[in-house]
This record gives sequence, C-alpha cells and structure tokens, in this order.
Amino acid sequence: MSRNIALRLSYDGSRYHGWQEQPRDVTVAGTLTAAISRVCGDVTHVTGCGRTDAGVHALRYCANFRTASTIPAERIPLAVNTLLPPDIAVSHAIDAQEDFNAILSCVKKEYTYKIVNSRLRDPFLHNRAYFYARPLDLGAMSRAAGFFVGTHDFAAVRSVGTETKTTVRTVHWCEVVRDGAEVTIRVCADGFLYNMVRAIVGTLLYVSEGKIAVEDIPRLLESGDRRLAGPTVPPSGLYLSRIWYDGDVGEMMSE
Amino acid sequence: MSRNIALRLSYDGSRYHGWQEQPRDVTVAGTLTAAISRVCGDVTHVTGCGRTDAGVHALRYCANFRTASTIPAERIPLAVNTLLPPDIAVSHAIDAQEDFNAILSCVKKEYTYKIVNSRLRDPFLHNRAYFYARPLDLGAMSRAAGFFVGTHDFAAVRSVGTETKTTVRTVHWCEVVRDGAEVTIRVCADGFLYNMVRAIVGTLLYVSEGKIAVEDIPRLLESGDRRLAGPTVPPSGLYLSRIWYDGDVGEMMSE
Repeated sequence: MSRNIALRLSYDGSRYHGWQEQPRDVTVAGTLTAAISRVCGDVTHVTGCGRTDAGVHALRYCANFRTASTIPAERIPLAVNTLLPPDIAVSHAIDAQEDFNAILSCVKKEYTYKIVNSRLRDPFLHNRAYFYARPLDLGAMSRAAGFFVGTHDFAAVRSVGTETKTTVRTVHWCEVVRDGAEVTIRVCADGFLYNMVRAIVGTLLYVSEGKIAVEDIPRLLESGDRRLAGPTVPPSGLYLSRIWYDGDVGEMMSE
Repeated sequence: MSRNIALRLSYDGSRYHGWQEQPRDVTVAGTLTAAISRVCGDVTHVTGCGRTDAGVHALRYCANFRTASTIPAERIPLAVNTLLPPDIAVSHAIDAQEDFNAILSCVKKEYTYKIVNSRLRDPFLHNRAYFYARPLDLGAMSRAAGFFVGTHDFAAVRSVGTETKTTVRTVHWCEVVRDGAEVTIRVCADGFLYNMVRAIVGTLLYVSEGKIAVEDIPRLLESGDRRLAGPTVPPSGLYLSRIWYDGDVGEMMSE
C-alpha cells in the first residue's frame, strides 16, 4: 500500500534555481527528492505547494510524496535533514490523506516581502531583503495596497511565462508594515500569478515615488496592462511565509 | 599631512579566514584594504580592533588607517562599499585624532555568542549561530557565568596560539539570556585572550550538562588548566557586538 507523506520545510533560496526540478540546475525540489529517496528508497517525485523562483525563500513550505517505505513519519525530518544541505530543513512529516496534494489542496498562501529602507547595507541581510535607499511613503503605499484586496483580474501585475486558465485571483490581505528600517509587505491570496507579489511590491514603490497615483490602482488593474504597473522587484526579499490547508496538514502548517 | 581615518563597519565572517591579512587566504582586512586603497590611493595597511577568527562575525567593528587623500570622511563609506562584497559594510568614517589606534585605544569590547537551542535547524541561521539540541539549564549557566566577572587569570579558558604578556583580564559582565529558542551569552571585558569567549561558552555548556559544577568555576580559573574547562565552541555563533573608545570614535561606535 502506498503512503502519502506531507512535509513541512523551510529554506534559504539564495543558492537555488528555485523550487522546481530542472535537468541541469540545482533546485530545492531536486535536492529534497534526492535526500528523501535515500531515506525512503522509492521516491522519484516530490510535489511542492508552489514554484518559488530562483533566490526566493520559504519560511513555511509544504510538499508531499508517495512511498511504500515503512519508516515512521516522525522519524523522517531528522533522517532527511542529515542528508540535506544546511539551507534546507524539514521540520515536520505526517501521513496525509490519500488525496492530499500540496498544490491542489492548498486553500490560500501568504507571501512576505522584506525591504530594508536604508542607505546602509546590512551584511547579514544580503540575499535576504531588498535594499531601498529613498524615503518610503508608508501612508500612500498602504492606501494603494488596499486596492489590491478582493477578487480582481491581476494580469497587470504578473509576468507572462507560466500558463494559467484565468488571471483572476482573490487577495485576502495586502498590508505594509514598518519596523525601524525594515518595511514588510504581506500578501495573502487563494493563488498567485507568476511574479505577482514582486510586481505588486514594485507598484507600491512606484506609488511611494509618485510615479503612480494611489487612486489609479483600480484602473491599472482593470487595464490588465503590465506596462502600467511598477517593476518586478528582486527575488531576494521574497518569502513564502504561510500556507493553509484543511485537516491534519493544515494543523501541521500552522503550528 | 597624513590623516588618521577611523571607520565603523560590520561583516558576516562566514566566507572569510578571519580579520587578519594573510598572504593566501581571503580575509576581511585584506578585502577592506584593497577597497580603501582604490578610494584613497595610498593605503597599504588597515589596523583593526581585534583579530576575529575564521567564521566569526562583527556587528560593530572599528578600524583605522593613515592617508594623504583629501576625500571628505563622510564620503568614504559609500565609496568603499561600492567596491566591497555585500558581506562587509562600512557605515561611518571620521577623521580621528593623530594618536588614535583601533586596537591600542580600545577601552573595552563586548562579544555576543548566539546559540539556537533546538533540535530543528533553521536554514536562515546556518553559519550565524551554534545549534545545540539538548535542553539548557539557564539557571546553572547564569550562576556559573557570574564567576567569570571580575579580574582573573583566564589562562584556563583560552587557546594557546597568540603571544600575550599576561593572561589576566577584567570581565565587566558575562550574562546568559534566553529569548525563545535563542540563547545569547554576552561577555564584556577590557581585553580577550585567544578563543576566550568560545571556551567560556563551552564551559557554560558543560555546566548545563552537569560535567562541571557551578561552584567549581573559581577553582577552574585558579588552576589555569585548559583541560579542566569546557570545549571551544564553533566560531559561527560569535559576534563582536560592541566596542568602546574615548572621544569622537567612541561616539561613532556607540550611535
């Protein structure tokens, strides 16, 4: 009988060519699959909850795989971690329901984008934040962020590249918070288009710079025209921060 | 006329073979000197406030150098940073007094050692903390730490390797603080022997493990016998965190 194991993990994406397995480049999925197959014997594919890009990080990531191995689920994290490089860590593993799928069962996800708003570099945040020197207009950014909340066509804030049936998504929250020099933007949605968070953040920076007016955001979304939005900010500041599922996996991911 | 410039900088030491310039290995001093000499033209030596080991970090580090360059001091940080790799950052520069010397003028220094007390690895703290899985007895560690405070011969908690006239130092504070899974040990002294903080931390871990009794610490120090103390813990958890000087440089370093 085949088991369906769900994992919770985190990773520093700096060294990786993203999540998705690729023939030549080192990816998180490729690295994880190799470690799991040594522990469980028969695993050739791991399904991830999303295709994070090169340089993007995950504070909480969910993946699942099928195996006939009899290893108790609670032993999997330590066993796999000893085979993984230190920038990937599996923290939990459970036997999930037969039909659980890390990407298809996902209810919603939250991404966090970290900006260090300072002229000074911080050697400890290199590759882990976006350094932005000019003063930020948090008020304007927050008001603009509010316009992204709700069910909209987000074609104006995505990069073409991944096929998708529809560019309509529901954003549950989009908020901008300052803590000293650190400005954090959190976006939660039922699903994300390619580069959607990075284009939203680039648009909020354009609002701060006065290049886009706050009240023009609804029209920008309606236009579906990527050229009217702000730039795609670098991947280094982006973290998959939360992910929601029903049932046992949901509990594991929210602990 | 020769100017004496004092710099404040920080660095992630993971990639470096320590501060001190070496013929073959990449060091912080070597990397910094190369950048400064391109900005100021005539700099061949930079004096640092201490010889941090390979893998040790600095949140606040002070260095000084002589130059005939007429560049305004306030322009030096940005000019040098554009030539430095992102894991070293110069934040301040001032014209110091003629007799200022980053190591000889130092009044006292504080090192911080960061332990992550968890069975779980954190991909974002790799190379930046020491992962220690067993439960820690913070009470015993704190009481033991108290015995290091004061003027003592610290020969029992140093590695032989650097010549020094005396192994007597004055420790101003030595404290252990827990914040969730993060346990921080701060040691402030008028000067440090080679590996002194790492041997003190190793000794505190031995106290937590019951291998050394709290009340045996004074005898351990009196013995001067390195074999009676705990092990030298890894460099990854060690940060030069504060440094004190009199006058203008002192103000720059405490901002």
